[in-house]
Amino acid sequence: MSADIAEQPAGFARLLEDEHAGAIAAVAAEVARRRPRNVVFVGRGTSDHAALYGAYLSEIRLGLPVASASPSAITLYGARPDFTGSLVIGVSQSGGSADLTGVLSVARENGALTLAVTNNPESQLAKAAELSIDVAAGHERAVAATKTYTAELLALLMLIEGVRAGDGRLPEQERAALAKLPQLAEEALADPAAGELAQRYRFASSLVTTGRGYAYPTAREAALKLMETSYLPALAFSGADLLHGPLAMADPDVPVLAVVGDGPGGKSMRDVVARLGERRADVVTIGPAGELRVPAVDERYSPLLDILPLQKLALSLALARGEDPDAPRGLKKVTTTL
Amino acid sequence: MSADIAEQPAGFARLLEDEHAGAIAAVAAEVARRRPRNVVFVGRGTSDHAALYGAYLSEIRLGLPVASASPSAITLYGARPDFTGSLVIGVSQSGGSADLTGVLSVARENGALTLAVTNNPESQLAKAAELSIDVAAGHERAVAATKTYTAELLALLMLIEGVRAGDGRLPEQERAALAKLPQLAEEALADPAAGELAQRYRFASSLVTTGRGYAYPTAREAALKLMETSYLPALAFSGADLLHGPLAMADPDVPVLAVVGDGPGGKSMRDVVARLGERRADVVTIGPAGELRVPAVDERYSPLLDILPLQKLALSLALARGEDPDAPRGLKKVTTTL
Repeated sequence: MSADIAEQPAGFARLLEDEHAGAIAAVAAEVARRRPRNVVFVGRGTSDHAALYGAYLSEIRLGLPVASASPSAITLYGARPDFTGSLVIGVSQSGGSADLTGVLSVARENGALTLAVTNNPESQLAKAAELSIDVAAGHERAVAATKTYTAELLALLMLIEGVRAGDGRLPEQERAALAKLPQLAEEALADPAAGELAQRYRFASSLVTTGRGYAYPTAREAALKLMETSYLPALAFSGADLLHGPLAMADPDVPVLAVVGDGPGGKSMRDVVARLGERRADVVTIGPAGELRVPAVDERYSPLLDILPLQKLALSLALARGEDPDAPRGLKKVTTTL
Repeated sequence: MSADIAEQPAGFARLLEDEHAGAIAAVAAEVARRRPRNVVFVGRGTSDHAALYGAYLSEIRLGLPVASASPSAITLYGARPDFTGSLVIGVSQSGGSADLTGVLSVARENGALTLAVTNNPESQLAKAAELSIDVAAGHERAVAATKTYTAELLALLMLIEGVRAGDGRLPEQERAALAKLPQLAEEALADPAAGELAQRYRFASSLVTTGRGYAYPTAREAALKLMETSYLPALAFSGADLLHGPLAMADPDVPVLAVVGDGPGGKSMRDVVARLGERRADVVTIGPAGELRVPAVDERYSPLLDILPLQKLALSLALARGEDPDAPRGLKKVTTTL
């Protein structure tokens, strides 16, 4: 897991090279040509969090309504929605989830433009879809996904900005911003604070993560990493939902990890952090001004960096608790659900 | 909270009376006439769980793709998606959430047919929407929503079956099935098992809820009730997502509440329960054959009944832990988020 985490800056750089960037641009150009009226994402676990990032990008950057299909409606209850005009994107590291492949097949038969975003271009999911993007993260050794997650994020960002551009080619300013990501990721990973923070949570019995807007997928993914590797019940909430009920649970014994960036999502979190303070919650923030420092970037790019110290925290906490982060009990690398 | 819970059978009966059923049928007929191409739900907290039920119904019973809009994309990031052909449904007990009102206003300006489902027909949300349904649950005394939740579920069910019928009028068979709900809800509430089960979780430090398909909203809502009233960190997962990572967290010290019905969703849960058994998890099931018994009904109706013993459990557990379920710390009845 440690090696997977460390490879993320190189993964960013690889995906930005002409070979992969060109392939994504070609897919983006084809999507733009087909002019979808809405976007439907399907994913499970970590890939669902990447899909959530894609959903925010689609709404905000493309102005397209976004649906998040319930695979069970299609695979268990036999729903056959009319997908005419929809772009249906399946996100999966392995491309091996039968339910996602089922959704993409049904969507394609019912009028959708289908796209698979996977780390395995030979997978069932990639074959079921009309278009396919290889996130090119290389073999992931640990069961808990890290480098495939950030590769999915970057691939979705390049796709959607390419669709926005129309011809798939990213504007010069966008390319310049993306070109800095490998170096910024190195800087975020070099900070030892996350490893040190693990000691603080050694005896925590549960934990809350929160963020809003672009930071919400980060909160969700951080919670999943902590559950997978440290078996710590970790609850993720959007900052807004946290105030609708779960706030009652907050007290000094429930630590909170809050992703607080510089943009609109981060600003709206300040009230949430204040309300948590009233409940004397133990809050650690992740962001440019946080206890877990990440370089300041446009909020749109921050999910690619904010998760890095949180992955390190999950790894360090698992070790501090005497667990094996590379082989979480009860899990396999490829999960098959119908 | 106890009184609110006990009023649910009468709430079902009231909503099924001609006055309210006729009003919902008229809205359903208008929705059918406008032929939406997709449905977008927005809600927060408990109402978001009712919206999730509406999403399953829309996909399965109407064959319409469903989107779950991120209010923050619109209210924080200024996204202005094209909502032409979309039915946008805002669900809120109070109708007072500024972010939902903002989403409905933007959606209406951008081509959507907008509908508010609230317990306050004079609310801002109801005024912002073109159409409005009153769930007629009466004044809810406790902060934790119970009777307004099930009233939202029934109103959404009546709406969507009315849209399916085309003229808003429910088919005879559907009306006969719905007419039984008040009596079935009485039976579910009469079972003392939920109150007794509370003792078992007196010293639990966290809890997992799970269900799939129509039962997933129940799992989400049960987790929220436990957090709001008993301050117990409760994690809700769809059965499929549980296998993608969080399963690692399951052990004999993390109790699991699994909603397992008779239909396709329930059948798909059997593998999940078996996998939890391998991890020696402490599993209690809710359903016609569960430790928490609810009457057997078509899976489509089960969310209206399955939540009842779980509300009682949340209430009893709060009391067993010495908390005041009527006044959860840190919460107000109407939560305002921007």
